[in-house]
Amino acid sequence: MSHNSFGHLFRVTTWGESHGPAIGCVVDGCPPGLELDEGWIQPFMDKRKPGTSKFVTQRQEPDEVRILSGVFEGRTTGTPIALHIDNQDQRSKDYGEIAKSFRPGHADIAYEWKYGIRDYRGGGRASARETAMRVAAGAVARRVLGEGVVIRGALVQIGADRIDREAWDWAEVGNNAFWCPDAKAALRWEEQLSAVRKSGSSVGAVIEVRAEGVPVGLGAPIYGKLDAEIAAALMSINAVKGVEIGDGFAAAALSGEENADEMRMRQDGHVEFLANHAGGVLGGISTGQPIVARFAVKPTSSILTPRQAVTLEGQNTDILTKGRHDPCVGIRAVPVGEAMLACVLADHLLRHRAQNPGAPAQGRLPRE
Amino acid sequence: MSHNSFGHLFRVTTWGESHGPAIGCVVDGCPPGLELDEGWIQPFMDKRKPGTSKFVTQRQEPDEVRILSGVFEGRTTGTPIALHIDNQDQRSKDYGEIAKSFRPGHADIAYEWKYGIRDYRGGGRASARETAMRVAAGAVARRVLGEGVVIRGALVQIGADRIDREAWDWAEVGNNAFWCPDAKAALRWEEQLSAVRKSGSSVGAVIEVRAEGVPVGLGAPIYGKLDAEIAAALMSINAVKGVEIGDGFAAAALSGEENADEMRMRQDGHVEFLANHAGGVLGGISTGQPIVARFAVKPTSSILTPRQAVTLEGQNTDILTKGRHDPCVGIRAVPVGEAMLACVLADHLLRHRAQNPGAPAQGRLPRE
Amino acid sequence: MSHNSFGHLFRVTTWGESHGPAIGCVVDGCPPGLELDEGWIQPFMDKRKPGTSKFVTQRQEPDEVRILSGVFEGRTTGTPIALHIDNQDQRSKDYGEIAKSFRPGHADIAYEWKYGIRDYRGGGRASARETAMRVAAGAVARRVLGEGVVIRGALVQIGADRIDREAWDWAEVGNNAFWCPDAKAALRWEEQLSAVRKSGSSVGAVIEVRAEGVPVGLGAPIYGKLDAEIAAALMSINAVKGVEIGDGFAAAALSGEENADEMRMRQDGHVEFLANHAGGVLGGISTGQPIVARFAVKPTSSILTPRQAVTLEGQNTDILTKGRHDPCVGIRAVPVGEAMLACVLADHLLRHRAQNPGAPAQGRLPRE
Amino acid sequence: MSHNSFGHLFRVTTWGESHGPAIGCVVDGCPPGLELDEGWIQPFMDKRKPGTSKFVTQRQEPDEVRILSGVFEGRTTGTPIALHIDNQDQRSKDYGEIAKSFRPGHADIAYEWKYGIRDYRGGGRASARETAMRVAAGAVARRVLGEGVVIRGALVQIGADRIDREAWDWAEVGNNAFWCPDAKAALRWEEQLSAVRKSGSSVGAVIEVRAEGVPVGLGAPIYGKLDAEIAAALMSINAVKGVEIGDGFAAAALSGEENADEMRMRQDGHVEFLANHAGGVLGGISTGQPIVARFAVKPTSSILTPRQAVTLEGQNTDILTKGRHDPCVGIRAVPVGEAMLACVLADHLLRHRAQNPGAPAQGRLPRE
Repeated sequence: MSHNSFGHLFRVTTWGESHGPAIGCVVDGCPPGLELDEGWIQPFMDKRKPGTSKFVTQRQEPDEVRILSGVFEGRTTGTPIALHIDNQDQRSKDYGEIAKSFRPGHADIAYEWKYGIRDYRGGGRASARETAMRVAAGAVARRVLGEGVVIRGALVQIGADRIDREAWDWAEVGNNAFWCPDAKAALRWEEQLSAVRKSGSSVGAVIEVRAEGVPVGLGAPIYGKLDAEIAAALMSINAVKGVEIGDGFAAAALSGEENADEMRMRQDGHVEFLANHAGGVLGGISTGQPIVARFAVKPTSSILTPRQAVTLEGQNTDILTKGRHDPCVGIRAVPVGEAMLACVLADHLLRHRAQNPGAPAQGRLPRE
Repeated sequence: MSHNSFGHLFRVTTWGESHGPAIGCVVDGCPPGLELDEGWIQPFMDKRKPGTSKFVTQRQEPDEVRILSGVFEGRTTGTPIALHIDNQDQRSKDYGEIAKSFRPGHADIAYEWKYGIRDYRGGGRASARETAMRVAAGAVARRVLGEGVVIRGALVQIGADRIDREAWDWAEVGNNAFWCPDAKAALRWEEQLSAVRKSGSSVGAVIEVRAEGVPVGLGAPIYGKLDAEIAAALMSINAVKGVEIGDGFAAAALSGEENADEMRMRQDGHVEFLANHAGGVLGGISTGQPIVARFAVKPTSSILTPRQAVTLEGQNTDILTKGRHDPCVGIRAVPVGEAMLACVLADHLLRHRAQNPGAPAQGRLPRE
Repeated sequence: MSHNSFGHLFRVTTWGESHGPAIGCVVDGCPPGLELDEGWIQPFMDKRKPGTSKFVTQRQEPDEVRILSGVFEGRTTGTPIALHIDNQDQRSKDYGEIAKSFRPGHADIAYEWKYGIRDYRGGGRASARETAMRVAAGAVARRVLGEGVVIRGALVQIGADRIDREAWDWAEVGNNAFWCPDAKAALRWEEQLSAVRKSGSSVGAVIEVRAEGVPVGLGAPIYGKLDAEIAAALMSINAVKGVEIGDGFAAAALSGEENADEMRMRQDGHVEFLANHAGGVLGGISTGQPIVARFAVKPTSSILTPRQAVTLEGQNTDILTKGRHDPCVGIRAVPVGEAMLACVLADHLLRHRAQNPGAPAQGRLPRE
Repeated sequence: MSHNSFGHLFRVTTWGESHGPAIGCVVDGCPPGLELDEGWIQPFMDKRKPGTSKFVTQRQEPDEVRILSGVFEGRTTGTPIALHIDNQDQRSKDYGEIAKSFRPGHADIAYEWKYGIRDYRGGGRASARETAMRVAAGAVARRVLGEGVVIRGALVQIGADRIDREAWDWAEVGNNAFWCPDAKAALRWEEQLSAVRKSGSSVGAVIEVRAEGVPVGLGAPIYGKLDAEIAAALMSINAVKGVEIGDGFAAAALSGEENADEMRMRQDGHVEFLANHAGGVLGGISTGQPIVARFAVKPTSSILTPRQAVTLEGQNTDILTKGRHDPCVGIRAVPVGEAMLACVLADHLLRHRAQNPGAPAQGRLPRE
C-alpha cells in the first residue's frame, strides 16, 4: 500500500522532487522477453517535456531517460526496470516566499500540516515533474499491451470552449500545440490561451483518453473494476478534479432505453455493440469496445495576480507566483493520461491472465 | 490486490451473490475498543434496503446484520469483524432468459467472456445487493472516524433535473423518498419518477456526498491521494459512470483567479479558506474543509422496453426485464456513497497515524 | 496488508474466535470453472478436527464446512468463495482465571498490551481453532493446483525422538494417530505420548511437508521467493518456532561440494537432479524437484503443572490449565502445514501465469 | 505484491543487477522529520562491502550510497527515499561458460525456465550484490526505530563448529573477521576457513540476530505475525535455508514445563519474564523481551571443484567457478540479517501505531 506505487502486478513506484538531483521510477512485474530500450521510451517523454511551445512552461529539461536495470541485450528480463532522469534545470532562485507562505490551490499547506517539513523548491514532490516518470512507465506498459492496443489522448475542452466532436480527426492532434483533434478549435484556443498567458492567468481543460483493441475480460468485479482503477489513475494526476467513463455525467440525464448499448451478432461470430455509452466497460470488465475516459484539470494555481494567502508563521499575506508555469496544465496532461491508462490496462492484462489463463481475447459467441 | 477487498489498513472484503444463501463481509484492521453492535449498524442498512418506497425495488429483504466475530462485550477487539446477512427473498422464478441471453448494460456478457460461467440468478455477484455489505462496513468506518466526522449524502439530480443549490436544506433529506435536500425538487421528482416507473423505463442521477470535521493531513501524495481513492471508491459502485471532487468538471471553465481558495488567519490561529473549489483536498491531502464529492449513476439497465441483445449461443434476440427493479438506482446509491466515503476516510485516518503520529488534527498556523 | 489475509492472487482471509458463534474464511482469486463442493473439502477438515484420538483435544466439533458463495452448479465462478463453520462446542465454563491472568507461552499478555481487550474464551482469536479455516482454504488451493501436484505431510519427530528416515513409508501415515511414516516410531510415540498425556504435560514436534509435481518456475526473485513465502506461511501457524527448506539448518555443516545438487540430462530432454539438498527451490524459484519443508512446533503451553504467572491487575499468581488440550499440538499441525503449502503454491501458480504465460511447466533443456 | 518490494508501511523496493550500471532502492513510508544523510548509512554498508578481509570476495566496491530524494536539509520529508550506488568493479571477463551452462546450487537454471532470459553476468539479479540495498534500507529503518532499539547480529556457527554460548561477548564481534562473539571460536574459524579458502571449497554458517528494546505490541495475529514476517525476511536472503525464533527447532524436544517463560511482577509494575524460549514473540506479537532469530546459510555454490552440470542446449558438462567468491557467504550475511530485522520491526512499528495509537510501549500491568 505504498503511497508512491501504482498498480499491482504491473507495478510502478516513482520517486524524486522537482529540484532534487534526479527523478526516477521502478517498474516491477514487467514480463520478460519484451523489446525495450531508451529509444522506445524517449518519444513519449518528448510529448510531455517542458519547453515545446509557448503554451507550456519554459523550464529546460531534455528528460533523457536511462534504463539502469531489468533489461539485457535489448529485452526485458522480468526483473525490476529502473528508469532514471537527471534533473538539469534547477534554476537558482530565491525560494523565500514559497518557503515561508502557502499558495492557494497548491499542496504546500497540506504538506505542512501532514509532514511538518517539505522540500518547497519548485513544489518538491507535489510538482507535476513527477509525471515524467509516469510517462516513462507508460511507455513500458505499452510494450506489455503490444501493438494491438492503441492508446491515444486529446484535449477536448479548454476553459469553457469544447471541440466539435463531429470534427474529430486524430490526424489533427499532432498538428497543434494542444493535442486538439478539431482544427478549428485549435485555432480558437491559440488565441484564447495567448491572452491567458500574457495576462499571467490560467485556465482549466478536459482531456479524453481512449484505448482501442483492448481484449475482452480485463478488469474484475466489485473493487478491482477496470473503470474504478482508471478513475483512481486519472484522479491521481496533478490538478485533476473529475473523471468519467463513457457518457459519464451525461448518462444521468439519459433514459434506460437511450443508454442501452444494444448488441447484434456479426457474421463472423463477433458481437457488435450498436453504441458505446458504457465506454467499453460493463460490470467493471472490458467488453472489447474502445475504453473511453475523460478527466478535468483545474486551472494552474500559479498565477501572476496576487491572491490572499497565509504564512508559515500564521500571518496573512498576498501572494503571486512568478517564474515558469503552464497557462493550461491540461496540455501536458494528455500524454500523462495516456500513460496512466496504459499502466492500468497492462496491470489488468497480467491480472486477467493469472486468474483466467484460457479466456478469449475477443468477444465472440458462443465463447470458446 | 484482492478484487473483492477495499482499503488497506481499514480493509473490507465482501462476498456473496444476489440469490445465494447469504452475503457478508470481513472488516479487518478496525482499531480495538470501539463500541459496536448490530444496533449501531442497522439504521444505515435500513436507509439502503429495498422496499422502502414505490420508487425502489420491491424485493423484500430485512437486511438484518449479524456480527460473527471481532466484537467482545460490545467493543471491537482489533481482530477481524465478520458481518453476515442471510438472504430472504430469493424469489423462485424461471431464469431461462437471463441465463441464456445477455442484457444490454448489464455485466452478464463481460462475465461470460471473462469467466465462462456465472451465477445469473438476479445478477449474481454483479447485483447491487453486494452494496448492502458496503453500507454495513461503512457503519463500522464511522465508528473509527468518531462523532466529530459527519458524513452525509444527497441526491442532487434525477435525469436532467437538478436541485436548486441555494435551496439546500439537510433537514429536507429525510422528508422525501429521494434523499433530496431541495423540497421543491423532491416534488418534481416524485411526479417525474412516477411516470418513469409506470412506463417501465428508468433514469439516471447524480449524488453528492460530504464529510465535515475531517482532520487535516489525511491522504498522501502521488498514488495514495485521498481524492484518487475516493474516485475509485465511488466509481466501484454499481452503475456509476463519473466522479468529481469539489468543483469537478466545472473547474475546467474557471480561471486561476476564480479557482483559488484564498486563505485568511482567524483570531484563534486557524486558517480559514474563503472558498472550497478544491472540495477539501489539496495535493491529495485533506485541508480540514468539507470533503465534497459527486458521482453520476446511469439509468437502470433493466427496463420493460425490449432492446436488441444476443444469446449465449450467438443468436440475435430482443430482451426486456420483468420483475422488481429500481426505476432510479441513484436513490439507493446515496447511503452506499456515504459508506464508501466513510471507508476511505477511516482507511486514511489509520494510514496517516502510522506515518505521522504527532501530526495535528486541526489546521492551525504555525503548526505545532 | 490485512493481518488476517494470506496470499496475493489466491488470497485467503480468515475470521472468527474459538468460542464465537462461527468461524469462516473468504477465498478470493480462485480461477473459475473448477469443481468444488463441500464433499471435496470435508475430508481435509476431518484430518484436523478435534476428538479423533486420545492424543488430541476432546472438544467436539464436526467442523462441517458450508460454501456460501463463489460456487455455482458445482463449479467455481471466479468470485469470492465464502466458507463457514458454525461452532458447536462452546462449553459453558468459568473463564475467571483465564480472563484475569496471563498464561506463560500463550498470546494472552501480548494481546492485552497490544489491544487492551481480548476475547479470552478458549484463546479467542489466538486459538488454533482458526487453523480449521486454513485447512478449508487449502482444499480449495489443491483444486487450483490440480491433481498433478501432490501435497503430503508427516510428523518426523515428537519430543527428541525422530523417525528413521530410511523407514519412511507414506502408506504408514494413515495407520497411526500421529501421521507418522515410520511404523516403529509410531509405536514408541504412542507410549511416550500416553505418558505425557496422563501427566498433564506436553511435548513439541517437527512436521515435514512435501509437494511433488510442482511446475518449474513458481516463485520469484528477491522478496517474493517461494521459500520465503513458505517460511512465512508455516511460521504463521500457532506454536511454530522454526522453519527449514531442503537440508535447512543441516546445510550449514556441509561443504560446497556436498551441497551441490548436480545435474544430468535425461534421454527425454529433462534435467535430472542427482540430489535435493535445495528442497526444490533455487533462487526462490521452483526447479520441479519435490518441495520439502519442515517446521518445529513448541510443546503445548496449556499444562496441568502450575507455572508462575501474573494477573491483569499486576499481581503474581500460579496458573495451570485444566480442560481439553492437545498433549502435542504438532499432530493436528500436519494437515495445517499441508494446507499452507498448498495455498502458497496456488498463489504462486497464479502469479507465475500472470508474468510468464508461456513458460514451460517442466524442466527440459533447451527450454521451449 | 511486487516481488522486489519488502514491507507494507515501511516499504523497500530494490532494483539492479550485479554487473549493471548501478543498484538502488526506494524506501517508501518513512516518517518525516528523521535525521538522515549518507554519513549515517555508510558505516552499515562498510560492514557488508566486499574486500574487507581475505575471507570474503575480493571484488572492489566502495558501495558509496547517494540519497537522491526524500531528504531535505538533513531530514526525511515523508516522501520516497531513493538510494543509489553506482557499480564500480564490473570486471571485464568472458562469461561464456556461465552464459551457456547452469551451475548447481545457483539460480541460473530456475531463471532460465521461468523467464527464458537472464543477465548472467555475475549472477545478475540473483547475485548477493542486491543485499547492499537491503543494508542501506536497514540503516533507514534504524532511524525509524530510534536509538532505544538495538539490533545486532553475530555468526554463531561455521560449518559444524558452533560458538560456546557461555562465552558470548558482544565486544568481541568487531574484533575478528567473522562477527564472532566467542574469541576462541574465532581463532578456530580463522584456521578452518583459511583451509576452505585455499582448497577452493566453501562452507555454511548460522547467524543470530537480536533486537533489544523493542516495544510491546508489535506484530499482529494470524498472518501478520511478527515472527512469520521475520521468517520471510531472513529466508529471502540469498542462500538461506532455515530460520528459527527463540529456541526454534530445539523447542520440539522440550516439555511444556521447560518451555514456559514464567513471569513475575517487578516492583516498578513491569512484568519480568524468567526465560526467553519464545524469542520475544507470543502469538505473533512482541512482548518486550529481546527478539531472537537465527538463520542458516548454505555453503557458497561457487567452488573450484568441478561439479556435474548441464548446458543451455541440453548437454551434460562439468563446471567449476573461478573468480572472486566468498568461502563462507554467512559472514557478509550478518549485516544483511540485521538490516532485514530492522526493516521488519520498522514496518510493524508503523502498522502498530495505525491500529493502536494509544498502546503502551512498555510491558506494565495493569496496562495503562
